[in-house]
Amino acid sequence: MNRALSIRSGGKSGKGSSSGSQLPSFSFSSLRGQSQPELSRKLFKLIKSENNLINAHEAAGRERINIATQLSEWGEQTGDDAISDISDKVGVVLSEIGEQEDTYAHALDDSRGRLKSIRNTEKSVQPSRDGKAKISDEIAKLKMKEPESARLVVLEQELVRAEAENLVAEAQLSNITRQKLKEAYDAEFLATIERAEKQIILAKHGRRLLSLLDDTPVIPGDTRPNYTDSSQARQILNDCEDDLRDWRPEVEPYDAPVEETSPAKEKQPALDVEADDGAKETETETKIMGSA
Amino acid sequence: MNRALSIRSGGKSGKGSSSGSQLPSFSFSSLRGQSQPELSRKLFKLIKSENNLINAHEAAGRERINIATQLSEWGEQTGDDAISDISDKVGVVLSEIGEQEDTYAHALDDSRGRLKSIRNTEKSVQPSRDGKAKISDEIAKLKMKEPESARLVVLEQELVRAEAENLVAEAQLSNITRQKLKEAYDAEFLATIERAEKQIILAKHGRRLLSLLDDTPVIPGDTRPNYTDSSQARQILNDCEDDLRDWRPEVEPYDAPVEETSPAKEKQPALDVEADDGAKETETETKIMGSA
Repeated sequence: MNRALSIRSGGKSGKGSSSGSQLPSFSFSSLRGQSQPELSRKLFKLIKSENNLINAHEAAGRERINIATQLSEWGEQTGDDAISDISDKVGVVLSEIGEQEDTYAHALDDSRGRLKSIRNTEKSVQPSRDGKAKISDEIAKLKMKEPESARLVVLEQELVRAEAENLVAEAQLSNITRQKLKEAYDAEFLATIERAEKQIILAKHGRRLLSLLDDTPVIPGDTRPNYTDSSQARQILNDCEDDLRDWRPEVEPYDAPVEETSPAKEKQPALDVEADDGAKETETETKIMGSA
Repeated sequence: MNRALSIRSGGKSGKGSSSGSQLPSFSFSSLRGQSQPELSRKLFKLIKSENNLINAHEAAGRERINIATQLSEWGEQTGDDAISDISDKVGVVLSEIGEQEDTYAHALDDSRGRLKSIRNTEKSVQPSRDGKAKISDEIAKLKMKEPESARLVVLEQELVRAEAENLVAEAQLSNITRQKLKEAYDAEFLATIERAEKQIILAKHGRRLLSLLDDTPVIPGDTRPNYTDSSQARQILNDCEDDLRDWRPEVEPYDAPVEETSPAKEKQPALDVEADDGAKETETETKIMGSA
């Protein structure tokens, strides 16, 4: 990790190349990308990349399982009892490593769903911002042209309503963004840890299996001693299965206690972060209108 | 791992489908596959699958790094200081997770090279088997046709030489196969453990970063307290970097001591397992010829 402690492409442009500087840039479907409102465009691309990531891990899992079967069948064909047994059992371990890769891909997909919640909220906030800006523009133009117009009063009432509506939308966006961002990447990190811990169990038992294969060189014409470790190899698979069954996720929600880093807020009646909770929104809006 | 303790497709045919029963079968380039001698065909396909696996992990690493940059740039665009800082630093962690995935792909490629040594030896042993069989056939035919032929003596001398040559070839194959099989998959398992342990370090620090993001919902119109955890976030990245730098591979060659499971052979002058050690082969061959 000998890199800068930021990975932004540099500058404060916010519109820099969205791919790593060393890598060939990924060509997004530009038409669909362009049809997204400006606000949600970056997240739209990120969600597409998450999809590519998921596909890559799924492919890795699939190939691992292919390899496991091929290794086992190759080993059988050698006609060497030791190689046949060890390759078959190493194949079982590799196959489970592949299954873990596939489970990981599915966990990433769940996490991707949370990013979509943010994107959907971003999408829905854009019209609210646009609406507010449009009314402001209209008022400014009308003030220049017909400063005495009766329509100005109506427009200013509309603006107050639009501002109130936008305040709610922006609060929703902030709440959803923070909550879902944490959830999405916490889920990815937890899935990364789970895959890692389970694959460590598998790899360690896999190495035990390999250690049963005697690779002392023989001289031509000599026969190797009979293979007698078959039951020990089976025991290793049983041990491995037990260890996987006993695996439990970490209990702590975060490595560093949350209380330490973000002091608990006094509990005030706050907006529900779920966007579809329409009742509360209206209530809050009414309150804001009253104080305007 | 609630599966049978073998992953062979069933039967002793040795020519069963070489892909998992649940999965769409991978379509190998059939022409090149067919041009391989029978002996090395299965391993040829396995090596091809290892290549697909490597490509999948490389793609996963690349997409992770894309996502890292996109997340950071999306966060900057939100205009929210906390999201901007945390998303950038989580991006750094994700990017390093991607680098680990890429390192893993390279380790798999090294391991694949060892499987190629086995395949090359298999390929070179095939003509030796064929040659021996051809001379035996010729002798059998000649004995039927012209039992008194002077050529029989020559052919029988040739057969003894071919058998000696084949004995050496088969011993080489056995030695190379066992040694390289162990090396190849031990290297894969070690690489799996390294990737896993490093990604666990990264994911745990990533979760610490996320815990700095206050996701207490705000009510519309309220402003969030200023973000003050920037230096703490930087400290987490430093901690993470330190932990990665301090990472060391396990010392033990295998989880179970090797001596326990395969008793040391008395040291006898054995064939060097390297196929290209021509001098020793000739020496051994001469010895065998002498005793014939």
